[in-house]
Amino acid sequence: MNDKQEASLYILVKNQIIEAIQSGKFQVGDKLPTEMELCEEYNVSRTTVRIALQQLVMEGRINKVQGKGTFVTKPKIKQSLTTAWKGFASQLMEQGYEPKTEIIDLKVVPADFTLAQHLKIEENDPINQLVRVRYANDEPLQYEISYIPWKIAPGLINDEEDCKSSLFQLLKNKYNVIIHKTVEALEPVLATEEASSYIGIPVGSPIFSLETVTYNDKLIPIEYSNALFRGDLSKFTIERMYTEL
Amino acid sequence: MNDKQEASLYILVKNQIIEAIQSGKFQVGDKLPTEMELCEEYNVSRTTVRIALQQLVMEGRINKVQGKGTFVTKPKIKQSLTTAWKGFASQLMEQGYEPKTEIIDLKVVPADFTLAQHLKIEENDPINQLVRVRYANDEPLQYEISYIPWKIAPGLINDEEDCKSSLFQLLKNKYNVIIHKTVEALEPVLATEEASSYIGIPVGSPIFSLETVTYNDKLIPIEYSNALFRGDLSKFTIERMYTEL
Repeated sequence: MNDKQEASLYILVKNQIIEAIQSGKFQVGDKLPTEMELCEEYNVSRTTVRIALQQLVMEGRINKVQGKGTFVTKPKIKQSLTTAWKGFASQLMEQGYEPKTEIIDLKVVPADFTLAQHLKIEENDPINQLVRVRYANDEPLQYEISYIPWKIAPGLINDEEDCKSSLFQLLKNKYNVIIHKTVEALEPVLATEEASSYIGIPVGSPIFSLETVTYNDKLIPIEYSNALFRGDLSKFTIERMYTEL
Repeated sequence: MNDKQEASLYILVKNQIIEAIQSGKFQVGDKLPTEMELCEEYNVSRTTVRIALQQLVMEGRINKVQGKGTFVTKPKIKQSLTTAWKGFASQLMEQGYEPKTEIIDLKVVPADFTLAQHLKIEENDPINQLVRVRYANDEPLQYEISYIPWKIAPGLINDEEDCKSSLFQLLKNKYNVIIHKTVEALEPVLATEEASSYIGIPVGSPIFSLETVTYNDKLIPIEYSNALFRGDLSKFTIERMYTEL
């Protein structure tokens, strides 16, 4: 067999596995047959099967677990970048996931230079620092640190229970904050030791960093947050209209 | 000195370097003083300087070049995720960058299973495959593969020169395609060998993968593309209105 035939063969094998996943023959979480079994089933060489599996891993359709085998992966959780802001819990529930929030830390810290700039306050001014891990169906998805100036929400540290649901709801209902808009920036980063310890992925995995500044109706910043999302579980989607050139 | 004093010292040093960058004392591309020089300037230990520099690297304000020193980085290029689609060149020019496009490959390929699904055509149907590298001020920023079904743009392979400017403009003017909307998905991935060879970053660096399906006015998919963006140079931004809870 020449290289060209080999090349088309692995695409054939790859596509047959994709079809088996889409038809439901292999379900999410199912273990795939071994490389040897796939060689026999498709009557191809081990090299061909390996290339097909490598490509499927890269496309996120399957994942290999050391010493355990190859499994069909779940589709990623979508975060829709609509122009109207939508909360974490709503987005998850719309996709059939059960949202859960764990409070890791809630305390008052002095503003450093960077925070003071983002929140337009003085250095060393008091800020509420809220650290949360957010789950989808008991799987950690997001690690988030939020900073809310003390003067916007004095005594927020006593509202731990309410911080488990919507922070924006709490700011609105208890502190009379009129939330107007968010300005967000997404960057790809590598998971640090701290992030990986909370969201359970290997150090160095690709993750999203989402930085958000939230403004009230007078365009005063009322929150600065940095959220890290597991890249293997989430993707951001947007639909855009094409108007003119 | 105790641990707490050490902790506040590195923040002090870090903030003074940030201030020196923002005041223009250190400009973009400038080499920072050595660790030893910074120790003397701020009268702190080498450990303190190292922690401050590490944090600044993580925040993307400076970068270390092996054997050459530490340099002030450029601010990232922003891709605005507005709801109205805006071309690559326009976004760059608005930020004062000179856009440039290099055609790496332009040929006709048979649709594999995945492409056939995205583009709602039959497997093995002919597709124009366009591979481009896009530059900002001569620095490679983005590696993009676009697939346009043959029947949407027959003979696109003869339009290499026009593909260097706007593909959408070409599809509109020459092939009478009425572009209606794009549906895009962003994921964080690690640079593969192929990507890193074109956009000049180390294998394993965090990059953005942006997958786009473009539809015409009859909601027929007319293009499927996958673009890889250098994570060290680019970030995606969005502004969202908060309407209600």
